[in-house]
Amino acid sequence: MNQTNQVYPVIWHNDSVSLIDQTRLPNEYAVVEIHRSEDMARAIKTMIVRGAPAIGVAAAYGMYLGAREIETDNRTQFFDSLEKVAQMLASTRPTAVNLFWAISRMKKTAYETAGTVEDIKKILLKTAQIINAEDLQTCQAIGDNGLKVLPATPEKLTIHTHCNAGALATAGYGTALGVVRSAWREGRLARVFADETRPRLQGAKLTAWECVQEGIPVTVITDNMAAHCMKQGLIHAVVVGADRIAANGDTANKIGTYSLALVAKAHNIPFFVAAPLSTVDFELADGSEIPIEERDASEIYQVGKTMLTPTGAEFYNPAFDVTPAELITAIITEHGAFAPGELQKFSQKQMV
Amino acid sequence: MNQTNQVYPVIWHNDSVSLIDQTRLPNEYAVVEIHRSEDMARAIKTMIVRGAPAIGVAAAYGMYLGAREIETDNRTQFFDSLEKVAQMLASTRPTAVNLFWAISRMKKTAYETAGTVEDIKKILLKTAQIINAEDLQTCQAIGDNGLKVLPATPEKLTIHTHCNAGALATAGYGTALGVVRSAWREGRLARVFADETRPRLQGAKLTAWECVQEGIPVTVITDNMAAHCMKQGLIHAVVVGADRIAANGDTANKIGTYSLALVAKAHNIPFFVAAPLSTVDFELADGSEIPIEERDASEIYQVGKTMLTPTGAEFYNPAFDVTPAELITAIITEHGAFAPGELQKFSQKQMV
Repeated sequence: MNQTNQVYPVIWHNDSVSLIDQTRLPNEYAVVEIHRSEDMARAIKTMIVRGAPAIGVAAAYGMYLGAREIETDNRTQFFDSLEKVAQMLASTRPTAVNLFWAISRMKKTAYETAGTVEDIKKILLKTAQIINAEDLQTCQAIGDNGLKVLPATPEKLTIHTHCNAGALATAGYGTALGVVRSAWREGRLARVFADETRPRLQGAKLTAWECVQEGIPVTVITDNMAAHCMKQGLIHAVVVGADRIAANGDTANKIGTYSLALVAKAHNIPFFVAAPLSTVDFELADGSEIPIEERDASEIYQVGKTMLTPTGAEFYNPAFDVTPAELITAIITEHGAFAPGELQKFSQKQMV
Repeated sequence: MNQTNQVYPVIWHNDSVSLIDQTRLPNEYAVVEIHRSEDMARAIKTMIVRGAPAIGVAAAYGMYLGAREIETDNRTQFFDSLEKVAQMLASTRPTAVNLFWAISRMKKTAYETAGTVEDIKKILLKTAQIINAEDLQTCQAIGDNGLKVLPATPEKLTIHTHCNAGALATAGYGTALGVVRSAWREGRLARVFADETRPRLQGAKLTAWECVQEGIPVTVITDNMAAHCMKQGLIHAVVVGADRIAANGDTANKIGTYSLALVAKAHNIPFFVAAPLSTVDFELADGSEIPIEERDASEIYQVGKTMLTPTGAEFYNPAFDVTPAELITAIITEHGAFAPGELQKFSQKQMV
């Protein structure tokens, strides 16, 4: 494999989108080529591509692929069909706001473009590519802004993270792992502690894989070990990503994030959320309004071919939880790191 | 399978010990016959039998099996050999104090028995059977004492538990699941929420299996979902077992218990430890002195035949953690439920 800073989970190549198949990592590195919008919708739903920012980029390309499929020269008919593409892509996953943000930006671009349907299609491809490039720059800025708020001591930090908010979850470089990468580059990082992140094990599979690619020491633990590690003084800071942030700073992220924030608080360990401003949903006053996706029970009762539970057991499988703003030390964005309460000042700037 | 109140993981039968092989549940119900002390040591180490009280009962029988193997009529030679059996059994697992308690009680019985070596052997079998029967009675008393401290409302409670402190972890009936069983019998139980309990998944495999046997509704969640469930008001009380309790009430139990206690506290949900008094190690002033077993990394990186992590990742696998007394609402014993600070009054009674 490449160096991790060359991991790009979503790229435009040969008139199609190449996705790293994240359901096969770490045992197999495979790339899936997506030519049609409905295949992109399926790839998002089945988590071939996952991670809030990466889903946004994938959905933007999905909008272009859908536009390309529309066979009409009539603008009104084109917009009607494009609306259906948008609905199909928006129905894939409910929690990450970047999905809706990207679809909405693509639609706005389409409506505001004068000229022929062909002109609109061209500008849509260009816009998806801009969203892609912007996300990469955004992540690099997030990583560098994270450096400014990490604890000053010790010199070499052990950073704990949950799930995968890495290059694989974004256009590249990562949000939480962007902070890790910047800290590693600057000699501020000793080691990453990665929660395995049940049920889908993105920490064990993806975060560990990214760290190994780059030679960053990584210790994988089960999710329930974090408090014990903190009590022993093994952890200096927690940095996680976000799928949707409400206007007050309440943050929806992968299930287990809330638990991790509570145990970090109990040990006075700073807890950072690293995310692009596009993750903030200023239309939601607080986290109680964020829809939480429930996924299939098989994610809990089966690992590989191994059945874990007896017949007759029931399951509950929420994919996300909401961490209240008061447990978050700072939200690290491309514009700097802010206390959750400070986000509001960006509510106008956000309205692209 | 039988009704769960007939689940006896360790029984004396046909001059040998029958163990339910807990590494094969829930997919397969198999019984292993143990004829020799070294096979018992291996069964404890490999967790064919597990759970602090069940390990105590198994070790008591292991001491008898070892005594039976000693071919001498000379008391001194017999005691020398018995000491080696004790050492072998004591070296199997470091955290559960019941193991050492049972071995020590068997040794004391041997030394205090007058008469021939054959007399000692007979009394050792009888003592192991008494330890076995006492543990069953103890669990039933713990279950009933738990009823007195469970929240008075709602009428039907949802009880959250971690790992398996059930019939399978004891001589029968269980400690934490003893409380669950008594609540179920009295119409006070709506449902059990069971943490799957990574890495070895005793919650998903064993607790779920026990509940299903008895028709108790059980919802299995991943460990990191507990806080989210509590925030939504789904949980009314947490009841867990214990592997060793220090004199001040600090409690070592399966990894993840500490995290669960912290998140319960954050939601003002009562957190109970259910354990026999033999679990209390009055020689340890507090939990910092409890040795924490570290187990093989393969428990984390492999489930069945599925490898979860990439080559190059590192691991940390502590099997237990320590929950400080201040997070524990009450410790439910066979003599009643007590605030952790009240345990001290039993320190003399404990010296069997």
